[in-house]
Amino acid sequence: MHLPDKTIERLSQYRRNLLITLARGKEFIFSHEIAELLNITPVQVRRDIMLIGYNGTLRKGYDIKELIDLIGNIIDTEDAQNVCVMGLGNLGKAIIKYFIDKRPKLKMVACFDTNKEKTGQQYAGMPVLHADELEARIKSMNISIGIITVPFDRANETANHLVNSGIKGILNFSSKPLSIPNHVYLEEYDMITSLEKVAYHTKDKE
Amino acid sequence: MHLPDKTIERLSQYRRNLLITLARGKEFIFSHEIAELLNITPVQVRRDIMLIGYNGTLRKGYDIKELIDLIGNIIDTEDAQNVCVMGLGNLGKAIIKYFIDKRPKLKMVACFDTNKEKTGQQYAGMPVLHADELEARIKSMNISIGIITVPFDRANETANHLVNSGIKGILNFSSKPLSIPNHVYLEEYDMITSLEKVAYHTKDKE
Repeated sequence: MHLPDKTIERLSQYRRNLLITLARGKEFIFSHEIAELLNITPVQVRRDIMLIGYNGTLRKGYDIKELIDLIGNIIDTEDAQNVCVMGLGNLGKAIIKYFIDKRPKLKMVACFDTNKEKTGQQYAGMPVLHADELEARIKSMNISIGIITVPFDRANETANHLVNSGIKGILNFSSKPLSIPNHVYLEEYDMITSLEKVAYHTKDKE
Repeated sequence: MHLPDKTIERLSQYRRNLLITLARGKEFIFSHEIAELLNITPVQVRRDIMLIGYNGTLRKGYDIKELIDLIGNIIDTEDAQNVCVMGLGNLGKAIIKYFIDKRPKLKMVACFDTNKEKTGQQYAGMPVLHADELEARIKSMNISIGIITVPFDRANETANHLVNSGIKGILNFSSKPLSIPNHVYLEEYDMITSLEKVAYHTKDKE
């Protein structure tokens, strides 16, 4: 099943909200309640959930546990995917601590740096490896996703290095827009642009 | 001048790329060179730059310094805007270190936490204040933008607290979609969703 990006984003958000709701002891939920959690319309929620082939009951709504599992079947791989982080600066460290253990099907397994004072150690339980080892490790550790957290002027070479080493997907946190071949999936995630966007709109409000 | 969000995002990216280019000693740049830096079309670059009323010369292209200043006039405020960070966990700390001094017109001035072991100290040169002081400090320190880095289940109350204390714009890094009144600008920035999106597309590639 190939779903639109926006649907994937919402399914990912449904699941995170439902996991919390489930942990609080609730077992069933109506579309209008999910809609409220995410600030979208109940129609949108029902459309998304119908699209993945699930039906609730009129009386009780959706079975939360079943819905979480079904979303997992759709957006997760059967086995976990292994993820590496490129760059162990402040941003890299935070991203590791933020992502680690958040999703069972996305495993942070290694980070890479070129600074020999950092490599050869452990960070958050993961090995910190020298970037020279990237290609060998992507293969031996079965890493499919790379997260780029290196500075602006190193982002391009890091992306090329990942691509040439056989990575399948890249999440780019540097503020350098990347150019990579189509067979690798790229998601750009520029934090400074997002803050400048808020600043621009906040300026309007003054 | 009210520009579309996508234009603001590109102007922000043009500027960051141009600052690097300028620092490397280049003084003039053609639209096709800017396009290459950002992986967009030269037509898009020319359209954006015409939109903000700037003209290059056929022979030399755009004056980089002038273009940077002009973009600044459009997306920055005249005086710097003051920014606070809500939550001094790993994510908050990384975001502070990442943003600090990146943009002269966006000043990180304080962070807020509810943990008394953290408050009363300094972090990265900023005071760590108790969240109880939020309203007073937003006024006295003239803070217009708040960055939310608190955990999922605390995001809503933190947003409400910011709104009630007079904040003008919010950048939300928690994975909880927020509902806030229209007079406050909100930008959602959910990192887990972005990683799950990469994972979904990477799965396709296996």
